[in-house]
Amino acid sequence: MQMGKVIGRVTATRKDERLVGTKLLITQPIRLDGTLTGEPIIAVDTVGAGVGEQVIYVMGSMAARAVMEERAPVDAAIVGIIDGMDSSI
Amino acid sequence: MQMGKVIGRVTATRKDERLVGTKLLITQPIRLDGTLTGEPIIAVDTVGAGVGEQVIYVMGSMAARAVMEERAPVDAAIVGIIDGMDSSI
Amino acid sequence: MQMGKVIGRVTATRKDERLVGTKLLITQPIRLDGTLTGEPIIAVDTVGAGVGEQVIYVMGSMAARAVMEERAPVDAAIVGIIDGMDSSI
Amino acid sequence: MQMGKVIGRVTATRKDERLVGTKLLITQPIRLDGTLTGEPIIAVDTVGAGVGEQVIYVMGSMAARAVMEERAPVDAAIVGIIDGMDSSI
Amino acid sequence: MQMGKVIGRVTATRKDERLVGTKLLITQPIRLDGTLTGEPIIAVDTVGAGVGEQVIYVMGSMAARAVMEERAPVDAAIVGIIDGMDSSI
Repeated sequence: MQMGKVIGRVTATRKDERLVGTKLLITQPIRLDGTLTGEPIIAVDTVGAGVGEQVIYVMGSMAARAVMEERAPVDAAIVGIIDGMDSSI
Repeated sequence: MQMGKVIGRVTATRKDERLVGTKLLITQPIRLDGTLTGEPIIAVDTVGAGVGEQVIYVMGSMAARAVMEERAPVDAAIVGIIDGMDSSI
Repeated sequence: MQMGKVIGRVTATRKDERLVGTKLLITQPIRLDGTLTGEPIIAVDTVGAGVGEQVIYVMGSMAARAVMEERAPVDAAIVGIIDGMDSSI
Repeated sequence: MQMGKVIGRVTATRKDERLVGTKLLITQPIRLDGTLTGEPIIAVDTVGAGVGEQVIYVMGSMAARAVMEERAPVDAAIVGIIDGMDSSI
Repeated sequence: MQMGKVIGRVTATRKDERLVGTKLLITQPIRLDGTLTGEPIIAVDTVGAGVGEQVIYVMGSMAARAVMEERAPVDAAIVGIIDGMDSSI
């Protein structure tokens, strides 16, 4: 999984019907110190995440497992809200 | 999923028979401000997208779920038309 | 899927038995103007592609769908010959 | 699989219920000489790995196979502790 | 699939039980001229490859198909020994 920060939201009226009702959050990878890095992706929220929160997200086919609608065409999903990151090295 | 812009179309007469009838759109990743970035890929359109539109596309095996023909060898599909991107950070 | 150009062929006498009889083509990504970019990969040909042709190839587990031998360990397959790429932007 | 080093741990109270009880380790790719490289990811520990240890980790849908909870939305898992790396070239 | 060269071996006493008995080879991508490039990964050998040999390897979930133990958590496997690469362009 990846560490990321929710930086926004995408709206799409016309979309695959299995995505209706999903919250599509723009999520960008973060470093251990919380700073943004890499390129943002769109992840389906499954844990009630909001803009500004640090999250754990899953990519690829396993992301679809996290979503309520079982057959949704989803390749990224937020599966946790980060409380803390302990890095000892 | 990724944010992208449809920048063109590919035609291929000789192709896997399960791709016959699909619309193959050249889609390039975009940044939050809509500017192009990265490298374009070919995505199967499933929502009636056209050249110039900003779209949401899925990659990997989950893309095949979005396509009508269930057993098509597809690794990228457009699953939504972007209405807007709200970025608050 | 990706746009690529077939630039060569790999021969391998000793290989997984489910790959016996497959044509293994060295395929490199191309830009919209047809110039080579990125790093070449090995893709199984499923449409009669030849060296020098521009092709559409699928990556990941969906590539295996394109191959005759259903259980072949394949992660890249050529699924179309490109006739043309129209880019209007 | 990848060679990595466990450099920390992530805590997340709010998460997918199938991740409850998993140990989420921040794992960074390493070179053959053990130095860190690339970007860290979050991997589920399945072999009792600890911070500072060099590990083998699996990415993508195969990572989920390593986890006890069969339907967990997991895309990275630690599946071995490295005893040694012999590089002869 | 990728073209690579076996450059070493990893030993891991503590590992997922489905990996017991597998040969874990450090494999680095190569260019058409055989020179090393990119970052090495760990691939399960399925064709009797040895250090110094040029090989074809599969990545992602399809790699698991190549391995004897059907449910092994494997995301990279060597599936062929390269005899030759003909590049005509």
